Amino acid sequence: MLVVALVKFNLDLCQLLSTIKMEEMAGTGEAQHPFWPRDLLIPGYVPNDRSMAEILSFLFSVSGGLLLGTWVLTGQEGAGGRLSAARRLAVCWFAVCGFIHGVIEGWFCLYYPSIPSDQGFLSQLWKEYSKGDSRYVIADNFTVCMETITALMWGPLSVWTVLAFLYNWPNRFVLQLIVSLGQLYGAVLYFFTEHRDGYMHSELGHPLYFWFYFVFMNTLWIVIPLLLIWDSWLQLSAVQALSDGATAGQHRPKAE
Amino acid sequence: MLVVALVKFNLDLCQLLSTIKMEEMAGTGEAQHPFWPRDLLIPGYVPNDRSMAEILSFLFSVSGGLLLGTWVLTGQEGAGGRLSAARRLAVCWFAVCGFIHGVIEGWFCLYYPSIPSDQGFLSQLWKEYSKGDSRYVIADNFTVCMETITALMWGPLSVWTVLAFLYNWPNRFVLQLIVSLGQLYGAVLYFFTEHRDGYMHSELGHPLYFWFYFVFMNTLWIVIPLLLIWDSWLQLSAVQALSDGATAGQHRPKAE
Repeated sequence: MLVVALVKFNLDLCQLLSTIKMEEMAGTGEAQHPFWPRDLLIPGYVPNDRSMAEILSFLFSVSGGLLLGTWVLTGQEGAGGRLSAARRLAVCWFAVCGFIHGVIEGWFCLYYPSIPSDQGFLSQLWKEYSKGDSRYVIADNFTVCMETITALMWGPLSVWTVLAFLYNWPNRFVLQLIVSLGQLYGAVLYFFTEHRDGYMHSELGHPLYFWFYFVFMNTLWIVIPLLLIWDSWLQLSAVQALSDGATAGQHRPKAE
Repeated sequence: MLVVALVKFNLDLCQLLSTIKMEEMAGTGEAQHPFWPRDLLIPGYVPNDRSMAEILSFLFSVSGGLLLGTWVLTGQEGAGGRLSAARRLAVCWFAVCGFIHGVIEGWFCLYYPSIPSDQGFLSQLWKEYSKGDSRYVIADNFTVCMETITALMWGPLSVWTVLAFLYNWPNRFVLQLIVSLGQLYGAVLYFFTEHRDGYMHSELGHPLYFWFYFVFMNTLWIVIPLLLIWDSWLQLSAVQALSDGATAGQHRPKAE
């Protein structure tokens, strides 16, 4: 339901804003690109030929499809059949993260030098997103490093987390903790560096680019990881307490 | 033994290099500071009046004292008496981390704007360290953000980790995992951003400033956290497996 609502919300926004924005971009005489700060130099920049609607529809329909697919998979008898509804939602989240980190952010960390001039679909997605944070079209050093680690580490580890919950592997909460803390730290640094830069890489306060792309989309990777870190903390401390209690009565000269 | 050897190694290096370096700084006519790149502008820079030997002696004697104190504490009957030698060393490490993150890096994130001109002892320590990485005297954005999170989060959490092992709290391995992953991610980003900057903030290949300050000191926060993440992974997966095994025979319609 959330995904459907999100897609609808975005398509509505597109209808309202896309025409205006496309015209803004198409040469009012000031800058040759739609990014901030307005005097930023982006050599070789080519404007997108895909619409915002196409790009957002792709992102939200693939994410939504993965979410629904994982929901169905985790509800089946067998591997996932024993999972609670909240746990199934968490597994869906990691499936979507596997796609976004591995594919979307993976594309960025492979092709960031040529994204401004490239018309590949995912390059256009990054040019669209960069209206909310131009660090992605200028290959900002921290952004490239953080995205590379996200794509290389949290992408594959997100998929591993999905499998770990599906097959009930004993490392499942450790994986959840590692991925969530990695995402949280990356997102906090992402906001913190831009805060100290005075939000100069976006049109501060713009409803779609600043609030939705930059603030809302990235806040997801603060709020949800915090919940999942807390969940892993409780779970892992509880099983440690169980193990400590089980061994407390025994004679153990050297314990951990 | 390691600490004693390290202190000795440094004092030897000091005798060899301090005179040469101090003379280099004292106005050969090129730059008014000892940092790289040589054309860096550092307004208000005041050269240290404390010697390298004083600064390194402070750092290594406080760290060594904390290490020895924690070693003795964890060997006593009572709270720490049940810990293995390897575990006691890990607890010593977190005690040293609590000091370095909380005090040394805490100072940096509070006073970084005035460090180049300040003669406070810890400001002088940071000016000395900056010979290996000048990002600390120019308040590089990523460096300030990463150090602030390190001081605010990994500092207090390191102390909490020490207490958790001393008192055998069930969250001890979760804390170890969180602190170690946070340190590892910070250190990897720290090296990665500088690598992409072409090691421009140090005299590449300098035995003391580049290899010891920049590479060796920071590599500690890659190697040791990796070992401790691996240790937490094994421990937490084992207690989870124990708990899963204990409940596997029972009828549980909804498990985690």
